[in-house]
Amino acid sequence: MNLNEVETPAVVIDLDRVEANIARLQRYLGEHGIAGRPHIKTHKIPEIARMQIDAGAVGISCQKTSEAEVMADAGFDDIFISYNVIGREKLERLTRLARRVRMSVAADSAFTVSGYLAASRQGEVELPVVIEFDTGAGRCGVQSPSEAAELARLVERSPGLCFDGLMTHPCNDRSDDFVRETKALLHQEHIGVKRVSYGGTPGMWQAHTFSEITEFRAGTYVYGDRATVRSGAMSVEECALCVVTTVVSRPTADRCIVDAGSKGLTSDLLGLQGYGLVLEYPEARVYALSEEHGNLDVSACARGPEIGERVAILPNHCCVVSNLYDRVYGMRNGQVEVTWPVAARGKSQ
Amino acid sequence: MNLNEVETPAVVIDLDRVEANIARLQRYLGEHGIAGRPHIKTHKIPEIARMQIDAGAVGISCQKTSEAEVMADAGFDDIFISYNVIGREKLERLTRLARRVRMSVAADSAFTVSGYLAASRQGEVELPVVIEFDTGAGRCGVQSPSEAAELARLVERSPGLCFDGLMTHPCNDRSDDFVRETKALLHQEHIGVKRVSYGGTPGMWQAHTFSEITEFRAGTYVYGDRATVRSGAMSVEECALCVVTTVVSRPTADRCIVDAGSKGLTSDLLGLQGYGLVLEYPEARVYALSEEHGNLDVSACARGPEIGERVAILPNHCCVVSNLYDRVYGMRNGQVEVTWPVAARGKSQ
Repeated sequence: MNLNEVETPAVVIDLDRVEANIARLQRYLGEHGIAGRPHIKTHKIPEIARMQIDAGAVGISCQKTSEAEVMADAGFDDIFISYNVIGREKLERLTRLARRVRMSVAADSAFTVSGYLAASRQGEVELPVVIEFDTGAGRCGVQSPSEAAELARLVERSPGLCFDGLMTHPCNDRSDDFVRETKALLHQEHIGVKRVSYGGTPGMWQAHTFSEITEFRAGTYVYGDRATVRSGAMSVEECALCVVTTVVSRPTADRCIVDAGSKGLTSDLLGLQGYGLVLEYPEARVYALSEEHGNLDVSACARGPEIGERVAILPNHCCVVSNLYDRVYGMRNGQVEVTWPVAARGKSQ
Repeated sequence: MNLNEVETPAVVIDLDRVEANIARLQRYLGEHGIAGRPHIKTHKIPEIARMQIDAGAVGISCQKTSEAEVMADAGFDDIFISYNVIGREKLERLTRLARRVRMSVAADSAFTVSGYLAASRQGEVELPVVIEFDTGAGRCGVQSPSEAAELARLVERSPGLCFDGLMTHPCNDRSDDFVRETKALLHQEHIGVKRVSYGGTPGMWQAHTFSEITEFRAGTYVYGDRATVRSGAMSVEECALCVVTTVVSRPTADRCIVDAGSKGLTSDLLGLQGYGLVLEYPEARVYALSEEHGNLDVSACARGPEIGERVAILPNHCCVVSNLYDRVYGMRNGQVEVTWPVAARGKSQ
């Protein structure tokens, strides 16, 4: 199948670039002795996770129990859920997963740990727990090394659970200090910190500057997007995913409407101007979206696209975009080489 | 099944409210002699479209050929695609649809009309075409009555096509004048304007103030959302859809994290502050989203929600939210009465 035969809007990925992105990060991490544990939340596709493992990743990261189930079914056997798994049904599913594959999970509260304790008892499985800490992201995570140490002690006291280490996202200039202080507190009690897991594609090429890091979780790097380009971590030419759209209207000389809107590109701005970069018309501005319409201002283009023409848009945030589509088209040499279902999308947590 | 057994995040709809919302608009339109043609892009669920037809709607509106296919398969026989259908595959699908059910389509350019002409020839079917016009929305649509008349003439000259009328979205105080001027231009050539289709939930209760209107398309009204409440068209108590979430973290006294983020609520702001209204804690602010995390500032709450607690969030924009989920849970009297697949989501155009 030729790209022109794919119905729009469609998520199209460049397989050469995906492979290069995976190889590049894994090589860098390998050179610095950092384990790679890529986050599959970006692609949700077992075939791509397989490429990441084959390149040398030690395992994968998931954000949801349901994602982990899809990946375990696909044969992945070392899965970290970097999320507080909460709720009876999810913990039952976690128990079943832990019986089959090596699972590890995140916690930032005694409440979460108590759930893991029950899950571990229920399943008669050992569950490694990583304590999430926060040094500025302002999302989840314990707020101080003493809190982290207290939670680590609770985990260590809980039969069936073992304290596996510390994680944060994204890492910053306070992350190492936090880890060192926590280690010092735990050292007195002979509790070791085996794993220190940092994450975040924008900072991936600085991973080696953290002295405490043992493992890096990156998700977006596999595709890249406009936000990644702005961060300096990737170039437009390295980005592997775009949304192929069709121009459906040219109501005025300046305005061009494509068939991808907020249901095809999402409203994620991430601080950027506009909702994407039109690759063939970089001077165009994607200034507004409604559900199935993307509004382009083409006044700065020498020649704007015509009705019926196809244009490819680099989205602001590839992870939320791939989550909208049931399948992606994998291209090589201008041909659709594979069509992959986005197998882990559309699930509950 | 009890609501507490539904895994989060989940889209939950109140069936009594859905029924009341459908009945209320249909009654109002009926009283004013306006045909109702609800837009299924909001729910994408045949069972709800059936409720709309049973209440008295003359047919349904779809935004995508793929949505129309799902609805035709479910037995709906009068479907308007209020969108420029462009591209060989989509036109072939349109042809097949038009052989089975009464289809009508929108156009705002000669390019679109030429595609319909080919589709009509191919399928040996008559295709009614509605000309889309723009009186301020700045999306698709011809810009002047003379353009509208010219396109109507082109349709009338095209064997197999028939000019069915005019449409716009949303209607405003210039819409009627536009229609009257177009009618005057076409009257000289004995071309009648049978159908004048306006749309938009925020303005639904003003539909009767338009003297030219014959048909009203509303989508969002079936569920309602925060943007609808702001518009004054519905109250919070009439809104039928919410996203049920679980609190997964309370890292600080002021901050609470729930398990729905931009992949569960979308980043649509529509000019509102925050990403949703927490129904049990209306003083809470949903001030940030990442993919699977929603950040709540609960500093204004007398007591914030605890970890493990469930909270229901009224989203800013229900149409993009329902598009994220594979199923919705229909509740009545605190019990899950039905689980409906969101049958028409995840398709290309």
